[in-house]
Formats: sequence, C-alpha cells, structure tokens
Amino acid sequence: MIVQKFGGTSVADTECIQRAAWIVAEKYSEGNDLVVVVSAQGETTDELIDKAGKLNPNPSKREMDVLLSTGEQASCALMSMALEKIGMPSVSLTGWQVGIQTDSAYGSARIKAISAERIKAELDRRRIVVVAGFQGINGFNDITTLGRGGSDTTAVALAAALNADLCQIFTDVEGVFTADPRKIPDARKLEEITYDEMLELASLGAQVLQNRSVEMAKRYGVNLEVLSSFERKPGTKVKEVIKMEQSKISGVAADAKIARIALVGLRDEPGIAFKIFRVLANAKINVDIILQSIGREDTKDISFTVARGDMESAAQVLSEHQNTIGYTDISVTDKIAKVSIVGAGMMSASGVAALMFEALYDEKINIGMISTSEIKISVLVDERDADRAVSAIHAKFFG
Amino acid sequence: MIVQKFGGTSVADTECIQRAAWIVAEKYSEGNDLVVVVSAQGETTDELIDKAGKLNPNPSKREMDVLLSTGEQASCALMSMALEKIGMPSVSLTGWQVGIQTDSAYGSARIKAISAERIKAELDRRRIVVVAGFQGINGFNDITTLGRGGSDTTAVALAAALNADLCQIFTDVEGVFTADPRKIPDARKLEEITYDEMLELASLGAQVLQNRSVEMAKRYGVNLEVLSSFERKPGTKVKEVIKMEQSKISGVAADAKIARIALVGLRDEPGIAFKIFRVLANAKINVDIILQSIGREDTKDISFTVARGDMESAAQVLSEHQNTIGYTDISVTDKIAKVSIVGAGMMSASGVAALMFEALYDEKINIGMISTSEIKISVLVDERDADRAVSAIHAKFFG
Repeated sequence: MIVQKFGGTSVADTECIQRAAWIVAEKYSEGNDLVVVVSAQGETTDELIDKAGKLNPNPSKREMDVLLSTGEQASCALMSMALEKIGMPSVSLTGWQVGIQTDSAYGSARIKAISAERIKAELDRRRIVVVAGFQGINGFNDITTLGRGGSDTTAVALAAALNADLCQIFTDVEGVFTADPRKIPDARKLEEITYDEMLELASLGAQVLQNRSVEMAKRYGVNLEVLSSFERKPGTKVKEVIKMEQSKISGVAADAKIARIALVGLRDEPGIAFKIFRVLANAKINVDIILQSIGREDTKDISFTVARGDMESAAQVLSEHQNTIGYTDISVTDKIAKVSIVGAGMMSASGVAALMFEALYDEKINIGMISTSEIKISVLVDERDADRAVSAIHAKFFG
Repeated sequence: MIVQKFGGTSVADTECIQRAAWIVAEKYSEGNDLVVVVSAQGETTDELIDKAGKLNPNPSKREMDVLLSTGEQASCALMSMALEKIGMPSVSLTGWQVGIQTDSAYGSARIKAISAERIKAELDRRRIVVVAGFQGINGFNDITTLGRGGSDTTAVALAAALNADLCQIFTDVEGVFTADPRKIPDARKLEEITYDEMLELASLGAQVLQNRSVEMAKRYGVNLEVLSSFERKPGTKVKEVIKMEQSKISGVAADAKIARIALVGLRDEPGIAFKIFRVLANAKINVDIILQSIGREDTKDISFTVARGDMESAAQVLSEHQNTIGYTDISVTDKIAKVSIVGAGMMSASGVAALMFEALYDEKINIGMISTSEIKISVLVDERDADRAVSAIHAKFFG
C-alpha cells in the first residue's frame, strides 16, 4: 500500500496531470494498492482568495473553506479522468466522502479521525483512490480546510490510517538539499534525513514539507519520501533513524520572512517573560527565537523573532501593555534573516558551531543573535548578508 | 418564505454578485425567510468541461460530476461572503449538505427527495441560506449533477419541499416575451403565463427556464416568477391559471437546432411506427414532431424531427435497420427550423391557426410540416425563412 501526494505544481496543467498519472499507473501496475492525494492546480487557491477578497475583504473562515476546497475537488476529478484515460480503474473522493473528521478551526483545522471505510472498499475493488487533499468536515458537517500545505497532512494522515508502507510526496524539487539549490549551485540532494532534521528544516524556511505533516509522520512512523514528479530520480527518504552521513550536518537554510523585536530596560524580576509572551499568545502571535540578556543597572533585555507579517501587530499589543510589562524601549526591525544549520548528530560532534561561526567570520558577517537546540544552530544576520552567509557555511561543510 | 435563484450571468463577476446580494438583502429585510440558489459563474462550467476534455475526451460521468459541481460550490461561498459584507447573516450549503438525494444518472440525475432539515435549522436562526444549485448526492454518497440548467430544478424543488410562497428565477432577461426580443423589436413582456404555455415555449427554444423545473413547479403548484437581476422591473409570473390576456396567444418562438428525417415507401401495416421509434429510443434519441402520411401504392411515409446533434446517429441506426423496418428511401435535412405559437386558450378560439398560416402566406413562406396540440401550433419552414416567419406571425397577433 502506497500513498502518493502530488502538489500544486505537479498537477498545474494537462501535461503535469498526465505525467503524474503515469507515475501512479506504474506503481499500481506493480501490484500495489494506491491512494493518491492531490492539491489544487497551480495558482488556483490564490486566485480564489483574490476573488473572495474583491467581494469581502474579511470573509468568514467557514465560507472561505467552502470556496477553497473546490480547488482540490476539481483536481481529484481531473486526476481520476487522466487515470481512466490510460486504462487505470480509479475513483475520486472528497474530504467528506473519505470521512476526514476535523475540529472546527476553519482555515487551519486539525484532523481528529479518519473513517477510511470507503477507501478500503474501493481498494478492495482494485481501484486507485484519488483523494482531494487539504480538506475535511467537522462535527456540523461543514467543510474545513487544513491550512497551507494541508495536502501533505492529508497524505500522511491517510498513510497512517491505512498503515501504508510508504508515503511519497511529489513536488517540483528532487528532494531535500543541503541548501536551497536555486541559490547554492553546490547544494547536493540528501539520500536520507531524520524526521527531526526535516522538522527543523521546514521551520527554517526550506518549504519542502509542511511541518504538521512531518510531525504526524514521526508520531505514526510513516515512511516518507520527497521526490520530483518532473524527473524520475530517487528523492529523499525521511525516517526515524538514518544511516551515517559523511557530513555532520544535513543542511543550511535561510529564512528572510522574519522580524526581530527587542524590549529594553525590563525589571529583573520573576514573571516578566510570562507577561510578554502571554500578551503575544493572546494576540495569536507565534514567537520563534527568544533571547534574554542582562541589561544595564538591574534591568534585563528580551529579544525575540516573529513572522514578518506579525511584526506590526506584535509591536502594537506590546505598546498597549507597556505599563503592565514595564519596559523602557522597544525596537523593531525586519531587515534581518535567520540562517541555520541542521543535523541530527550535530551537538555530539565537536566543532560544528565553531565551523559555522568561522565561515561567517571569514565573510565578515556580523551575528545578531544565536540560538541553539539539539539538532540546530541558528543565527540572525543582516538581511543583505543572508545569501552570502548560506553560501559560506555550505562551502565550509560540504565544499 | 421565498426561494431566489440566480443564473450564471447573474453571478458572473464581482459586480453581478454584489447586485444579486442587494436583491436578496432587500427581500430578507422585509422579514421573509430567504433561500438563495446559485449557478456556476459565467462560463465556469464550459471551462471545466474543456479542461476535462483535454485530459480525457470521454471521461466517466461520475468524475465529470465531481468536477462540475465545484462551480456551484464556489458560487455559493462567494454569494454568502457578499451577503456577509453588507451585514446579512448567511450560510452556504452544498447539495450534499442540504441533503438533495438523487438517482445515480450522473450528468442528468433526477431529484428523489430533499431532507431540508439543515436548511430549516439555519432559517430558524434567521440566516439566509445560499445553496449550490445543479447538484445532489446519490445513495452511494457520490456527487451527481442535474444536467444543464439544473439550478432551476434545484430552486423549484427547494420551493416545493419548503412550501415557499414564491420562487423567483433571476436571469439576464426581464421575463418571458411574446417573441425573442433580440430579433423582434416589438416583442412585449408577458405579465403572466401558464405552466403549460411555459413548457411549450421552453421546448420551442425560448430557453428561459429548464423544462423539468417548470414541470415540477406545475406538479407542486410552485409560484414561479422569471425576472432580471440587472433591471429592477416586475418579471413574468408562471401560474396554473392566469387572467384573461388580450391576445389569444402568448408567444411566438423559433427553434433552428433541429433536423428532419423522412422515411419513404414504408409498408402500410401495423407495427411499422413501433419499429422505427423503438430503434431510435434504444439509441437514446428523442423525437419531437412526428407526421405520417399516405404514400404511393399501399405505402406510407413517416417524417419526424430530432435535435440537430442527433441527426447523424439517427440516420445511422435507421440505415442499419433498413431491412427490419422496410423502407425504400431515407431523406435527411438540417436546413429547416420550427416556428411555433403557444397559447393556453388557443384551440378554443377560432381562427388562430388560420391567422398564423395567413401571416406565412403573406410572406410567401412555404410550410413543410404542421403539428398541433391543445396549446401549440408548430410549422417547419426553410431555415432561411425562420426569422421572417416569426416576425410576420408576431406582427399579425401583436402588431
């Protein structure tokens, strides 16, 4: 049993769908049970959002989900037709037909359960089942969507529910690279990567797989493979444990879509950090790196990063709470980028951090903040230095 | 309780949807319960058919319905957003959410039942319910569509199921006219028309309302009104009995999308007509006018009309069965048109047929076949004479 997922670029037009259909047909003809998950075609979702925005700049999320889910529904019908054309028995199913039960968080719903009976019945009839990704229904029988990249989550959830042997994510890149191959010509494709490394890479802006889908794959032990629908080459396998890699790190990634906020002159007493991040949490603003440092004369400073789109509202709510939090100054900038290296065995190998910092020093790139975890080291640098930083670090580890 | 249906041209773009939303809001604000049925936007359905055709010239009807139903689903979400924008509480529902149960004739399904509980619950909460037209689900939980113009049927079926006081069909014309106003400048809008007249007019190519929806309205006594969403004028009311009209007929219509087939030299014995029309029925070809005349020497001739698109296949199957049917010659032409007058009280009024034939005689237009019913007289004329015939007949009755 194999679950194959084709992203928006992999079903963008007639030719892409036909290409994808042949990939499916090949695996089916080898005797596998096949479940295929499809995204909306190319720019469809953006076009629908645009259309809605003209009618109502602030439409209800429920109606938005009714609208957006049509994109994947159209894709699954088209894919099924393409499979029929080449003689493959096939049936398309929407989220509600599959029985993908979610909570009611329209626009970013989470899957609660999958009643895969219909899928199993169709597979028993030796049909290829083409499922509309990204969508489900809540307890009121209303349509929900899983948020951007939600089709990855659909694919992994189905692989888990059906106990599939493999979940293949087809996209427009050949796999996971040691750095963004569009910017670093020397970047090389990884044969294997762990779930944890993949999670760090996704959150670092590598944008290969949606984080939720990787978390789910890790939790249920789903064997993932990321590969291209345009070139017939092996992709990157995502697993719990991988064989020894030659290098100590798996990849270098940059994320420029962030902003840094620094609060200066905070009282050095308990509860300050709690107050700050409670205010931000109430405003539904996610915080990434947090750094606390000692300031002048019994004060402390707290800096953190947020998504660039949240910068304005974060500054706004913090200003509103200046008195309760008690800071003297706030500074905000979006002229920064986060550059990170990821590797499962990194921290146990000596000198990895030093090597990274040396690469930046060689290039005379100033480091703004440093944050480390078991498998990741991130630094903030000036936005203009980001590409150069990735290039230098990549050359140092993989060159 | 009012059901309002907006066709594809009435929701074609942002401006059209906004205009429709104000029409809905007005009736809602008067205190009515409102159910709104929408078609797919403008050319959406044709575009989807085109897209499917590129992947598979002969896709399964099941998958086609999954694909096409997305058009109306997108429309109902967009209409609901437009209503929200102007402060109207509103909720969109798809065919399966409403519970529109159909048979399994994908592409031309018939409604078997409507479980309108969800709609009633939403109306009880004083919400405007926006329903995706044209679609339902069958007993397997698969999506079905009702065929071209199926949104009219959805609207009338909902009006019947909900016992609505009125079902308004909004379109791009102001109502039903005594002739096609694009061709006959003197054509005038009818204030009222009977179901039966409307049925004859629709089948004559007037193309205002889908025939099935009128039949259903007649069966369940649904008060229909056909009107424009672009101009705020009273439309045409469709009822069982209407008040006396000044003229004896309601309208003149031409249908050029027909072909005539004549079988000559048939044996004059029982069962011949049965054989001919059984062969055609088996090939799923619908026949309109049938005329039988006496031929030479103990033979008879049978002529009939079919939709122009069916001409080739009709001629084909009849040729294959020439021996069993037993005719000497077959003649086929599509250079003809059907011109008809319709009026509920026509046959009881003397001289109507004579007046029609006089109009044609004045214009020196030759009549090919004549067919009459209780409320209709149709003649076949040369295709090139059709417009002139309508104009002359219209002037004779309404001039």
